[in-house]
Amino acid sequence: MTTNEKSLLLHEEWGGKLTTESKCEIKTREDLALAYTPGVAEPCKVIAKDQEAAYQYTIKSNTIAVVSDGSAVLGLGNIGPYAAMPVMEGKSVLFKSFGDVNAFPICLDTQDTEEIIKTVVNIAPAFGGINLEDISAPRCFEIESRLKELLDIPVFHDDQHGTAIVVLAAIINSLKITGKKKDDCKIVVNGAGSAGIAITKLLLSYGFTNIIICDTTGIISESRDNLNDMKKSMVSITNPENITGTLKDALVNADIFIGVSAPDVVTADMVKSMNAEPIILAMANPVPEIMPDVAKAAGARIVGTGRSDFPNQVNNVVAFPGIFKGALEGRASQITEKMKLAAAEAIAGLVTDDELCEDFILPEAFNPEVKNAVAKAVMDNIEPDGRNIHSK
Amino acid sequence: MTTNEKSLLLHEEWGGKLTTESKCEIKTREDLALAYTPGVAEPCKVIAKDQEAAYQYTIKSNTIAVVSDGSAVLGLGNIGPYAAMPVMEGKSVLFKSFGDVNAFPICLDTQDTEEIIKTVVNIAPAFGGINLEDISAPRCFEIESRLKELLDIPVFHDDQHGTAIVVLAAIINSLKITGKKKDDCKIVVNGAGSAGIAITKLLLSYGFTNIIICDTTGIISESRDNLNDMKKSMVSITNPENITGTLKDALVNADIFIGVSAPDVVTADMVKSMNAEPIILAMANPVPEIMPDVAKAAGARIVGTGRSDFPNQVNNVVAFPGIFKGALEGRASQITEKMKLAAAEAIAGLVTDDELCEDFILPEAFNPEVKNAVAKAVMDNIEPDGRNIHSK
Repeated sequence: MTTNEKSLLLHEEWGGKLTTESKCEIKTREDLALAYTPGVAEPCKVIAKDQEAAYQYTIKSNTIAVVSDGSAVLGLGNIGPYAAMPVMEGKSVLFKSFGDVNAFPICLDTQDTEEIIKTVVNIAPAFGGINLEDISAPRCFEIESRLKELLDIPVFHDDQHGTAIVVLAAIINSLKITGKKKDDCKIVVNGAGSAGIAITKLLLSYGFTNIIICDTTGIISESRDNLNDMKKSMVSITNPENITGTLKDALVNADIFIGVSAPDVVTADMVKSMNAEPIILAMANPVPEIMPDVAKAAGARIVGTGRSDFPNQVNNVVAFPGIFKGALEGRASQITEKMKLAAAEAIAGLVTDDELCEDFILPEAFNPEVKNAVAKAVMDNIEPDGRNIHSK
Repeated sequence: MTTNEKSLLLHEEWGGKLTTESKCEIKTREDLALAYTPGVAEPCKVIAKDQEAAYQYTIKSNTIAVVSDGSAVLGLGNIGPYAAMPVMEGKSVLFKSFGDVNAFPICLDTQDTEEIIKTVVNIAPAFGGINLEDISAPRCFEIESRLKELLDIPVFHDDQHGTAIVVLAAIINSLKITGKKKDDCKIVVNGAGSAGIAITKLLLSYGFTNIIICDTTGIISESRDNLNDMKKSMVSITNPENITGTLKDALVNADIFIGVSAPDVVTADMVKSMNAEPIILAMANPVPEIMPDVAKAAGARIVGTGRSDFPNQVNNVVAFPGIFKGALEGRASQITEKMKLAAAEAIAGLVTDDELCEDFILPEAFNPEVKNAVAKAVMDNIEPDGRNIHSK
């Protein structure tokens, strides 16, 4: 039986991958009186006087929503909220299994930006954080930035920032192996969707200065007249030499290729045109931009993909559970750029000097230290003024 | 330590009464590949082709939302969504503990009728049912009826219908004890909020014909000019003799008093003015409309309250868990009047002839047969045409 066939059978057997469980036993009348009426009125009254006490007495302290509109699910595209559920349940399971964070899937029966924003704001009281998932670009950018403004709890679009954090961690360790310096590196990011944009921004925050973004019609530059607002906003901060042309042109003398795009768009010749010891992160799923053996044969020093059956899987699961674990435990009101950079450093730092090599640039997803290291990085970077509950 | 003090301490210790738990162990790469990518794409694809398959592969089959806007919470009033959370978590715990139904609290940061409706519609894909809770009248009536139209999953306002079902069950058994016949009974319902209206409607459906509703300004009749729309709509189906006056006037020669109102509004003299062997359900919390000993001394044959420290606690917990258990297991698209009547009969029927007496008219909340009996009553009354998933 294939993995896919087995997965379908298991999903039917599970009948939903999550349950809600009670922390309190209700076996007697007294149990009822304590967990429900009349005793429950007491924490209600305390919270009514001081909204902040919700963190003390309710699930808000350790529960997030995994929110999607089903518009950009895995490689499946716009399959809608019902079909997105298995993924959002799976994501919720990963939050719990890898980060001890309670997570509940909220799949929205609307793809209207304003309605999504309004709905998430309306359901926010129960939650300590919002993980946005599989919402298509460019709407995801506006939804995330507006929700960050409107809510006093962390809002995090994992497809953007989770991916960016793990890519940065992979690159930090790849630089150690290759001896490349971030000031000299030319980076090409192929794919200008949510992940590509977020990766580029985080790499810029980290200190890289020469990043070229390509989309399906080529290099994003001043001379392009078919750019959406987000891509336009990238022109001034990327491509400093304002080069034009195709992905092939971009890769000449590049040091790092980052693919969040489509299968087989990078050839051996393109890799050969890069600087010595190129670093290739080809993360298209399930078929990468270039297969690892082809890239290696063409001279790549380090190759990572999104797949677990090749070395160096670039897998968000080393980031998002710890990110929210730390944000919830530290009562962060936002996931800031500083936290993301610290999380990437923490992930990179989990690979010991002894382990670090071409085929081991990222910690294992199942390394139990990952969540705590990432959570600590987040908590250590919480601004003291970032904790105010907003009032209406 | 009082119950209230102990409850507050416990709520702090629990730090939220619910967790989300994974049904699938994620210990290996293979586990990940089955529960998440790439395997998870398979159920997604099946659901994308046939939305109905969501019931086969996702939590929709066994999970409901407990939705409140915090506008009418217990006896606490309009305390808002944050302060309502302990109650909604408690309710979710009861759904799980008493009905094996997974439930998640959704506390809404809006009290606007249209926004509430829109928000619930938008989050509906993940859920197999919506339990509305502690939403103030008259908004609760419109919210419920509109959601029933818009959604293809059961929508149930427990404060209305759960209460009505248990009250009817209590009355069914009280009639057995007193020998009163439903055709001859005069019933007075004091309180014209969500519970009072729903009780009246269900009693009418059951076959009672002479019901008088009172609100804080007296008997609801044709001559009143200060009635909201819902109360107005009750004039033509209640109070057949169109009597006017106060609660005291209404109770003269009544057989049954149903209080969902305020403490101490019924006096011994009022009970004495009722027909022989009156039935008193005085459910104001925590202080009933008349204390049981006072009512008994004035001639009441049967007295029930909302409290667990007196006999005959009229407690919704014998209804709502089984209602949703049955609705979910039977894939009902609505909770119909027929199901509610059958549920009330089922609850009443759980008290055996041997047990049935003045002080034992309702089954114990902890009776393990309750949920199955109620669920069966619901399932036995599902209309075969009530199962269509709507498409947009």
